[in-house]
Amino acid sequence: MDQRLLKELKETYHLVFHNEALLEQAFTHSSYVNEHRYLQLSDNERLEFLGDAVLELLVSQFLYRNFPKVPEGKLTKLRAAIVCEDSLSKFAKECHFDQYVLLGKGEEHSGGRTRPALLCDLFEAFLGALYLDHDLVAVDQFLAKVVFPKIIAGAFSHEMDHKTRLQEVLQRSGDVAIEYQLLREEGPAHERKFWTEVSCNGEKIGEGYGKSKKLAEQAAAANALRRLEK
Amino acid sequence: MDQRLLKELKETYHLVFHNEALLEQAFTHSSYVNEHRYLQLSDNERLEFLGDAVLELLVSQFLYRNFPKVPEGKLTKLRAAIVCEDSLSKFAKECHFDQYVLLGKGEEHSGGRTRPALLCDLFEAFLGALYLDHDLVAVDQFLAKVVFPKIIAGAFSHEMDHKTRLQEVLQRSGDVAIEYQLLREEGPAHERKFWTEVSCNGEKIGEGYGKSKKLAEQAAAANALRRLEK
Repeated sequence: MDQRLLKELKETYHLVFHNEALLEQAFTHSSYVNEHRYLQLSDNERLEFLGDAVLELLVSQFLYRNFPKVPEGKLTKLRAAIVCEDSLSKFAKECHFDQYVLLGKGEEHSGGRTRPALLCDLFEAFLGALYLDHDLVAVDQFLAKVVFPKIIAGAFSHEMDHKTRLQEVLQRSGDVAIEYQLLREEGPAHERKFWTEVSCNGEKIGEGYGKSKKLAEQAAAANALRRLEK
Repeated sequence: MDQRLLKELKETYHLVFHNEALLEQAFTHSSYVNEHRYLQLSDNERLEFLGDAVLELLVSQFLYRNFPKVPEGKLTKLRAAIVCEDSLSKFAKECHFDQYVLLGKGEEHSGGRTRPALLCDLFEAFLGALYLDHDLVAVDQFLAKVVFPKIIAGAFSHEMDHKTRLQEVLQRSGDVAIEYQLLREEGPAHERKFWTEVSCNGEKIGEGYGKSKKLAEQAAAANALRRLEK
């Protein structure tokens, strides 16, 4: 077991595994097992199977609780953007998991250590091991450090339209009245332009224009979000 | 709230909801909400989003624990066969959930009450409501009555090959030695036939034949499974 991994888990995430063999298994890629058959190791694939489902539940629960007004279809899109190879491989790297995974020589030489699919599986396997060694709450707390702040910061919110996102941001601390008002429209019919402003509890917070009322409202919401995030 | 549903949940599954509104929401289809806008109801879609992930985790955990020797790829196939529209709609019917779901008139007339996709969503929404109202353990106990016995009985095991399935059945109560022995082969090369027997701890438990050694072993395992299940 790599002592640097144990140290990093303890210092950064306050995590100490009771059963270090589980942690070791999570960091053992099948290519390493195949090259060291005499050691009779287990690879991390079954842990990944379990961890994948643990992650899916905890992200779903987080979205369900934190986006109380967002309909199911949008939650599903948002979840898919979070629980995907691209995102998970980045989380694995941020945790430096890529430094500790045991690979076979072939996998190592072909760049396995930076391969998104491998890092994504590694991240899920780690969550599976943590779930078995601790419980669901421990995995939730880990994700609250690594994944959830990024969701709140809007890293995946390109999956939401601006109006939905603005509503979520403003309603986080309670119900507010959000209104869109058409200010003016001008130009000939084939080049019509609409100006809209958005207000929150009567106070103007953004404005925008577009080729339709809908697009103008989206632009106003985007403008309000940019101002809020300053 | 349909009192028959409350009665059935209590008598059959020993379940009493603290928050009946959650249960009611789980049984409210969007078509009903759309036809009764003045009631300002919430449909079951967000609960389905959550319940889907709860189910995925609990089935994964069950498979992980009960099939300790089955590799990840086969677990994933098995999970997909359990957590699918066809299976879940059947579970919903077995629980009589189809009798209690609130539908709009259009949905009712077009046969929504028997539509697998609708029943599947209903089953997941119920699990989501149970998770929120109780906890993960309560959902696990419910699945232990409705879903898990069918997995153990082999209802989804067509997803596993016979040799894997036999191994699982025999190793459930501890490690055993399973051996396949080629008894004889005969016939011309293009019509070769192989006879194989399978033994467990030295005792013959099945036999079979096929066009290749592999197929003969699968046939022997299937034969052993049939004998064991008698």
